[in-house]
Amino acid sequence: MNITEQKISIEKVKQSKINQVDFDNLSFGSVFADHMLVCDYKDGKWEAPKVVPYQPIVLDPSSKIFHYGQSIFEGMKAYKDVNNDTWLFRPLENQKRLNVSAKRMAIPEIPEDYFMEGLKTLLKVDEQWIPKNEGSSLYIRPFIFATGQGFHASPADEYKFIISCAPSGAYFSGKVKVLIEEKYSRSANGGVGYAKAGGNYAGQFYPTQLAVAKGYNQVIWTDDNTHEYIEEAGAMNIFVRINDTLITGPTSDRILDGITRKSILEIAKDEGITTEVRKITVAEVIAAAKDGSLKEMFGAGTAAVISPIATFGYRDVDYDLPENEDSMATKLKKRITDIQYNKTEDTFGWRYKV
Amino acid sequence: MNITEQKISIEKVKQSKINQVDFDNLSFGSVFADHMLVCDYKDGKWEAPKVVPYQPIVLDPSSKIFHYGQSIFEGMKAYKDVNNDTWLFRPLENQKRLNVSAKRMAIPEIPEDYFMEGLKTLLKVDEQWIPKNEGSSLYIRPFIFATGQGFHASPADEYKFIISCAPSGAYFSGKVKVLIEEKYSRSANGGVGYAKAGGNYAGQFYPTQLAVAKGYNQVIWTDDNTHEYIEEAGAMNIFVRINDTLITGPTSDRILDGITRKSILEIAKDEGITTEVRKITVAEVIAAAKDGSLKEMFGAGTAAVISPIATFGYRDVDYDLPENEDSMATKLKKRITDIQYNKTEDTFGWRYKV
Ligand SMILES: Cc1ncc(COP(=O)(O)O)c(C=O)c1O
Ligand SMILES: Cc1ncc(COP(=O)(O)O)c(C=O)c1O
Repeated sequence: MNITEQKISIEKVKQSKINQVDFDNLSFGSVFADHMLVCDYKDGKWEAPKVVPYQPIVLDPSSKIFHYGQSIFEGMKAYKDVNNDTWLFRPLENQKRLNVSAKRMAIPEIPEDYFMEGLKTLLKVDEQWIPKNEGSSLYIRPFIFATGQGFHASPADEYKFIISCAPSGAYFSGKVKVLIEEKYSRSANGGVGYAKAGGNYAGQFYPTQLAVAKGYNQVIWTDDNTHEYIEEAGAMNIFVRINDTLITGPTSDRILDGITRKSILEIAKDEGITTEVRKITVAEVIAAAKDGSLKEMFGAGTAAVISPIATFGYRDVDYDLPENEDSMATKLKKRITDIQYNKTEDTFGWRYKV
Repeated sequence: MNITEQKISIEKVKQSKINQVDFDNLSFGSVFADHMLVCDYKDGKWEAPKVVPYQPIVLDPSSKIFHYGQSIFEGMKAYKDVNNDTWLFRPLENQKRLNVSAKRMAIPEIPEDYFMEGLKTLLKVDEQWIPKNEGSSLYIRPFIFATGQGFHASPADEYKFIISCAPSGAYFSGKVKVLIEEKYSRSANGGVGYAKAGGNYAGQFYPTQLAVAKGYNQVIWTDDNTHEYIEEAGAMNIFVRINDTLITGPTSDRILDGITRKSILEIAKDEGITTEVRKITVAEVIAAAKDGSLKEMFGAGTAAVISPIATFGYRDVDYDLPENEDSMATKLKKRITDIQYNKTEDTFGWRYKV
């Protein structure tokens, strides 16, 4: 069945909550737009998506989401330009990745038109919720979870796909200090690290709490086998600049194939920056920090955009990154956000008008 | 605050559903007893547990359970003996392990008295739900999940602890055929494999579906680094009998510390069986299968008790296990279930009267 926008039913709120929101002081993902898109999977198929008022979800206590962590999600943003037009950034990449995650977690894939038409319909209904302030955007959270019931450890037979939106400001406030982790790991070879599966995030909370207690914001994960290679951060891929080369690790079954990461690689090439996609050892980063060739490190992801790392810790030693006049992070962040907010030409064809 | 049974409030159902249940044909974990125990974590503490009718749970769409897989669970059973007395098997081990899982998943630990008094109160209210039929029992599912809200990837500030019960028959029906997995993995070094975290189970569903499509019931996981070592099965630890020695792998941060596993090790010693706790290579199991020294393989876990493996597959070859007159699986299963159902003396002090 092909979904057109006409077929998506819309039930509007009686009273909008938008006046309660302080758009000048938005935190990240803590106030939610008036509506959400809901789509149920039953009897072997996805039913027609509906736009409904943001409302509680009612579930049987034996629903498998509570027991077996069968859940996946995506993270996207909608941007307003000066003409009040609404833009998305490479939304089909999120739709495809949601289905990559779905497959790995034995969740039924969501058809492209359900996702895209559902999202566009929702964004039109909640258009007023897209912030116009510099640096703010509407964070979009598509997610799917198992509603089917029973204590048998096997895939559910029913699921719910929801898109909910939250007008949001910056993910990190202030300088970012990270800790290179050697004891705990994020993902296994042959595991689910490349999927945006709920459990991947809960597994990071405790090691991150330990790092936060030591004064860091975020953990940098290394491979679970040798802990010699830098892999990624909580919800960011990691870039390292040594002299004038920008390096990021290859994706693998342990690492999320970030859309920001691959966009940055393309922008960097376009800007004439030498890039390398190869494994990065902790040892070379330490050596480069010591001899001064380590110029920059930054995280890249939809939520945090490009987040320059000010300091990294490793084995109880902190290494400060220098301030750079010709910062690649600054240049790349400007270029990618200018594309996202329609402030510059989009030679890549990434911008998507709603 | 110390919880005594008196302080646990009880709200009973108006109409029991027990007459709808066919106790002679119970599947596993698909019908649920009339009541459940509910305990909420708010403002930094667990509130008093309540026994309430089994009922739907109402959650905000931004509750972290849906997004970040912050959930843990336990699996226990209540057994009826011929005098109609109710027994648990080493329940404090489950309570302790729930808190081990809680710690790893950044979930607040549940106090021992909340767990034990809550469980006992619930079992008294739903005593009629404990099956009296041979081989059946009341499967008990304690679980905790994040109800706290927000799209920020960080631990929730609110949680729900629930105990729900399901009168259940056998977990596996018929002979068990397993596949030794070399591509996909269950857990990472430094990961969450030793915790009963929801996401560990969802991650197994897809590889298990692939195995089921090839005619197997279950995957046997190997280590994610070399795939040379046999680790465990979906919800069972694995035992291998080579000649007259019973071998099981050591627990680690990748493997659940199963209560059945450790009980079997003790019973086996008591029965005069030579046991070894050491890493088991796939290579030695294949060699033993070929030279006839591989006598038995079985899975051990609360849900499946002891499940003899009839056949295992490895690299497209199936290996059948022989039928044994002096089967250790049969002997050990009889001894452990006799203890659980109060049919024999419990020299270990494991049985716990409700
Ligand atoms: C683990 C992880 N790595 C990297 C990223 C960055 O991906 P993207 O740039 O597509 O947002 C994310 C998510 O946003 C993530 O969850
Ligand atoms: C992954 C895993 N391994 C082993 C077991 C067996 O543990 P127990 O004997 O405590 O039930 C379980 C759970 O029941 C499990 O989930």
